[in-house]
Amino acid sequence: MLYSNLFPKTLKTTSSEESKNAELLVKAGFVDKVMAGVYTWLPLGLRVLRKVENIIRDEMNNLGAQEVLLPSMHPKENWQKTHRWKTLDVLYKIKSQTGKEIALGPTHEEIITPLVGKFTNSYKDLPVALYQIQTKFRDELRAKSGVLRGREFGMKDLYSFHKSEKGLEGYYPDVIKAYHQIFSRCGLDAVMTTAPGGGFTSGGYSDEFQVVSPTGEDKIYVCKKCKRAYNEEVKITKCECGAFLDKKAKNAIEVGNSFKLGAKFSDAFKLDYVDVKGKKKRAVMGCYGIGTTRLVGAIVERFNDKNGIIWPKNVAPFYAHLLKLGDNKKVSKVAEGLYAKLRRAGVDVLYDDRIDAQAGEKFADADLIGIPLRLVVSERTLKKDSVEWKERSKKDSKNVKLEKTTKEVEKWISK
Amino acid sequence: MLYSNLFPKTLKTTSSEESKNAELLVKAGFVDKVMAGVYTWLPLGLRVLRKVENIIRDEMNNLGAQEVLLPSMHPKENWQKTHRWKTLDVLYKIKSQTGKEIALGPTHEEIITPLVGKFTNSYKDLPVALYQIQTKFRDELRAKSGVLRGREFGMKDLYSFHKSEKGLEGYYPDVIKAYHQIFSRCGLDAVMTTAPGGGFTSGGYSDEFQVVSPTGEDKIYVCKKCKRAYNEEVKITKCECGAFLDKKAKNAIEVGNSFKLGAKFSDAFKLDYVDVKGKKKRAVMGCYGIGTTRLVGAIVERFNDKNGIIWPKNVAPFYAHLLKLGDNKKVSKVAEGLYAKLRRAGVDVLYDDRIDAQAGEKFADADLIGIPLRLVVSERTLKKDSVEWKERSKKDSKNVKLEKTTKEVEKWISK
Repeated sequence: MLYSNLFPKTLKTTSSEESKNAELLVKAGFVDKVMAGVYTWLPLGLRVLRKVENIIRDEMNNLGAQEVLLPSMHPKENWQKTHRWKTLDVLYKIKSQTGKEIALGPTHEEIITPLVGKFTNSYKDLPVALYQIQTKFRDELRAKSGVLRGREFGMKDLYSFHKSEKGLEGYYPDVIKAYHQIFSRCGLDAVMTTAPGGGFTSGGYSDEFQVVSPTGEDKIYVCKKCKRAYNEEVKITKCECGAFLDKKAKNAIEVGNSFKLGAKFSDAFKLDYVDVKGKKKRAVMGCYGIGTTRLVGAIVERFNDKNGIIWPKNVAPFYAHLLKLGDNKKVSKVAEGLYAKLRRAGVDVLYDDRIDAQAGEKFADADLIGIPLRLVVSERTLKKDSVEWKERSKKDSKNVKLEKTTKEVEKWISK
Repeated sequence: MLYSNLFPKTLKTTSSEESKNAELLVKAGFVDKVMAGVYTWLPLGLRVLRKVENIIRDEMNNLGAQEVLLPSMHPKENWQKTHRWKTLDVLYKIKSQTGKEIALGPTHEEIITPLVGKFTNSYKDLPVALYQIQTKFRDELRAKSGVLRGREFGMKDLYSFHKSEKGLEGYYPDVIKAYHQIFSRCGLDAVMTTAPGGGFTSGGYSDEFQVVSPTGEDKIYVCKKCKRAYNEEVKITKCECGAFLDKKAKNAIEVGNSFKLGAKFSDAFKLDYVDVKGKKKRAVMGCYGIGTTRLVGAIVERFNDKNGIIWPKNVAPFYAHLLKLGDNKKVSKVAEGLYAKLRRAGVDVLYDDRIDAQAGEKFADADLIGIPLRLVVSERTLKKDSVEWKERSKKDSKNVKLEKTTKEVEKWISK
């Protein structure tokens, strides 16, 4: 893509933002704040979000889960059946022209459970696992952490339905494995953390995936021996492996969670099946969430420096940022040739083709936007028949021969 | 995909549905009705919707438009600026815990115009075209046409911003061309139709894209000479080409529309730029919509018979539906081998591997689901070392030699 065409350009100044992720994402032109907790995803930001979503989709499909798209508007009756119409304080409510009351989905157990119930008759219909990647709405009293805690935000929610607790217990570790795979592909090291169940679930414990970060709003105690962690709200001193926990809590950002719901929702919606002996049985459920927009925010909180964002390769908006310095004819010709060659090789590349921007501005924008590989073509590099190669996460640059550049980029991508 | 794993199976009966598209999409397991005008998209349906979205995305990107994702929750103030907070009757309104009033986006001029305004300073920033594929919410008094008129539905909305009316006039035909390309790739023959502006726009005329269908709720008069059409609400008798229109109106389904908005919204949000002479000027706008979920419904209304849906190849949930008849060991082995070979060749195939379903049920399900190519492996076909090849849109079947089947399928797909 030509940077001269990209909407919008980076901002020279930003209004004071409440968090590092919002400050950088707004300034670099990835998101625009519409109101507190509500953001527009701009072309650069949407590219990152789609990459995150596709990593998640890939791992969900590998797990054998099937993708659906549930609606945001839910009938009041469904929420009354679980009593959450009254008890869930973050539930947005709408009254239609005809007087019908509607809930705006903050989570989807109230829709997915009767849906699966409608198509479940016998033990042959179970287990089944469905997921969606969709917008959620939560009437948070405070929304102050940029895209980490939105009132409107993206989420992947997976729901699994089983014949028995045993079936759920057997399936659960597969999801945990997929989750670790997702975070790792996004460049994050997430620790599994025991936490209270919380208002969205059936009480008891849940598992959170936490990324240690000084800006995180959660506090966790990590076990040095087995790497399991405990949310401070659980307040225990000894890990389940027997070892004592760290005395000092670490700040962390929650990027995912999973709950063994048991029969809480299948009771509310009478989700029954007939077992192999012809006996009526109640199904049990698990649910598993990853905030997709929040994940983008967590990546920014984790990977930045004073100059801007440092995107991990798998989720970067482009692999390479090609800069042309100056308006020398030969420089332009070489830069355009390299841009075309990279694109023909299937490399996603952002080409800063501006003629009205100085070298300093181009370098600053490249650092702010944070594309992992910067390639510079200038009169100076052409003297050596070379391109300057600089990785955003590294300090030093090197020269790469012009004719070898595309091959080297391909090699670097597949590394 | 194995049909035995697919969620859900086809329904044996359906509750009476208000429209052909809802009846078939519900019965075949593509969508589930949550309440009037609100649907869940099930795995089969979501596959179709994504194919439609990707065709649209492809044509929008070819047009040079950039994809963004605007929020569904809009500040009241933005809708007050255009006076539509009070005048637009289909606007859903929410009050948050903190008392803040929010609109649930039925369209996005109120968000995109100030967004582009924020980043537009000089003539160099224009033109710019942004689009999104996103959920819209409209408080329709009646929702009675299945996925054709939802209260919550998918839409692609493109907005273009220009320095002058002349710029808009020059760009507009490019969008029209892209729209024709989109509908044609979806298997539809859409006629461009002059229509009134409607409540969403600035008055005057707009262009609709209409698909002639006996079940359509619009009525249009088509010019036989130049193929342009006129919505009955325009009530003229002569085409702009000079020819008289058909005397009899045809029923049609609107699948897209486009409006030259002029300065209606740029006036409301004071979207100005500085021209090449340093003079302040007001930008002008166009907007262009395609209902993505509605488009799926229109395709079903247009392509069905008494046995079910007949998907055009480009938007079908799978290219091929492989049926294994009977539980003979050799039949199973051959069918599984063919399934594996097709998948290795990258062919999206649904494999009806059920052992508890009779041939008649499998044929009926295949016709109902409407995948364009049906391949049958049975004892009978194996006697001739063959596979039965039947296209859903054709009456007759033929035999294809087993070892040639994958190549023939690939050839048929690329045709």
